[in-house]
Amino acid sequence: MAKIKILTEAELRQCVSLSKEVHDVIAAAFARLAQGGVVMPPVLSMELPQVNGEVDVKTAFVPGMENFAIKVSPGFFDNPLKGLPSLNGLMVVLSAETGIVSAVLLDNGYLTDIRTAAAGGVAARFMAPRQVTTAGVIGTGLQARLQAQALLLERQVERLQVWGRDRAKAEQYAREQTGVLGIPVSVADSAEALVKSSQVVITTTPAKEPVISADWLHPGLHITAMGTDSPEKNEIDPAVFAKADLVAVDRVSQSLERGEMRSAVKAGLISADTVLPELPGISAGLVPGRVAEDQITLCDLTGTGVQDTAIADLALHRATAKGLGTLIDS
Amino acid sequence: MAKIKILTEAELRQCVSLSKEVHDVIAAAFARLAQGGVVMPPVLSMELPQVNGEVDVKTAFVPGMENFAIKVSPGFFDNPLKGLPSLNGLMVVLSAETGIVSAVLLDNGYLTDIRTAAAGGVAARFMAPRQVTTAGVIGTGLQARLQAQALLLERQVERLQVWGRDRAKAEQYAREQTGVLGIPVSVADSAEALVKSSQVVITTTPAKEPVISADWLHPGLHITAMGTDSPEKNEIDPAVFAKADLVAVDRVSQSLERGEMRSAVKAGLISADTVLPELPGISAGLVPGRVAEDQITLCDLTGTGVQDTAIADLALHRATAKGLGTLIDS
Repeated sequence: MAKIKILTEAELRQCVSLSKEVHDVIAAAFARLAQGGVVMPPVLSMELPQVNGEVDVKTAFVPGMENFAIKVSPGFFDNPLKGLPSLNGLMVVLSAETGIVSAVLLDNGYLTDIRTAAAGGVAARFMAPRQVTTAGVIGTGLQARLQAQALLLERQVERLQVWGRDRAKAEQYAREQTGVLGIPVSVADSAEALVKSSQVVITTTPAKEPVISADWLHPGLHITAMGTDSPEKNEIDPAVFAKADLVAVDRVSQSLERGEMRSAVKAGLISADTVLPELPGISAGLVPGRVAEDQITLCDLTGTGVQDTAIADLALHRATAKGLGTLIDS
Repeated sequence: MAKIKILTEAELRQCVSLSKEVHDVIAAAFARLAQGGVVMPPVLSMELPQVNGEVDVKTAFVPGMENFAIKVSPGFFDNPLKGLPSLNGLMVVLSAETGIVSAVLLDNGYLTDIRTAAAGGVAARFMAPRQVTTAGVIGTGLQARLQAQALLLERQVERLQVWGRDRAKAEQYAREQTGVLGIPVSVADSAEALVKSSQVVITTTPAKEPVISADWLHPGLHITAMGTDSPEKNEIDPAVFAKADLVAVDRVSQSLERGEMRSAVKAGLISADTVLPELPGISAGLVPGRVAEDQITLCDLTGTGVQDTAIADLALHRATAKGLGTLIDS
């Protein structure tokens, strides 16, 4: 039958890394989602409390793209005790014309990391103020690193601050990222100090209680909240929904179910049928992003299947151009 | 990182084919589903009318099994015009302990064919009368072939009848299957004649209007309806729900959404909160199957994720024992 291309994480890392072009690809996929014709079913979410695990499956069919991806993302949170990573997974790539499996991307979650950071880049492109002297990152993990890189591709940031519950990790982040980003990175004394002195703040935590208070907002602040992706999480004080000039989300249906909108509905600050502007509509130019430097803006990202399809299609095209991968007769 | 085993359809065919042991494996998986602890989310179903296609994703986590599968089943119905099969797909196999991808089964739908036929075998085991002189199959495709084989593993059938809308295909089926099954196979003059003269009937069609009328039912008849797996399909006259002594389904929630229960609810013959016995509960001995030779019984099969996990786990164990597969460093 057909030949199926198998690509490993190492091969995929040779094909795709964070860049302005990857931001463009994600922005274009968002725009298609807003323009209609995209089929993006709700996330298949499987909770496995008996093994402290979960599996999410995301997908989207994007007309005009040669392929579409079905992404399997397991998270098994006892794995670190066994010396294994919590997250891994792969993407199955199907031909948009025939549905036949064209490739399996054994990325161990790498492509998810990139497309997640790139969505942050797109949020910054359309919603951050033009002048960003100081930016702040809350959280010290992989996305705290990648989101800062994505922001720097979109804005000329002069200095970065980091804050995390574990000061030692924040200090390690500051040391490492100063070299990676090429700008000074310092540890903030508190989340409050970080927010009050930044024009852009990115939250990248698995917090179950808000890490940002509405009292800290100030004119000209943009916040990208990307940590909350399941119903028990909440990074942003729901009062921010009332106080900000513009709140956008990647997908209203997902944010209501598993993002920051969920907590805002629960707190009675927005109703369950609120239709907030979506980053896809903003990317398509259908609704405005930031329109003034002194606006207060928030963008909540939960991660969408359309990003997975876009990054998988890009990775497969680049891998094919480079002659990478193992072909298997299926 | 981890090594991932890639198995092709040819290798998987060397490991798994229809057998009583495979029926046992599926029956055991059904029993676990009934006994609790299994996590089986609703099917992720993606309709792609713009390419006359659809994709279903099914999965189930079964405690005690070493692995669980996430199955991707695309159906693109213009493919035959291009000389390609409508159905294909693969299974991603994850460790139940760590969630790490252990294998990718490039089966092109082969394992689905087997586990679907095996569920028919389990239905026959618990619901067919003990004495089956004459059996009938409606439909002439692959499942019409496999379901007959599965039935013959469970009952000593003396002769088989087939009926299909296309007489030439029915005649071809009869010629071929006589040799395969080792019993006489003849073409029935009508679906009615077939049903009235059989003790077991299996419907394997994509019909949108019933192919079996309730007027044809007779004491001692068992029907397995396996064709209906999406909301627009309907093989069985809803009046059968009122007339049969026992109607079971593989999964009530699925049959209500995409099986024969849907049509029976629409026809007002059962209510939308009807809880019919499930084949899993029958397999576990928690609820009775057939209790008398003269009962009229119906079993509706829509296909469950627990079957996919069971067949994938079996295939992977057997492939490992045989030393089959290609290992890829992920």
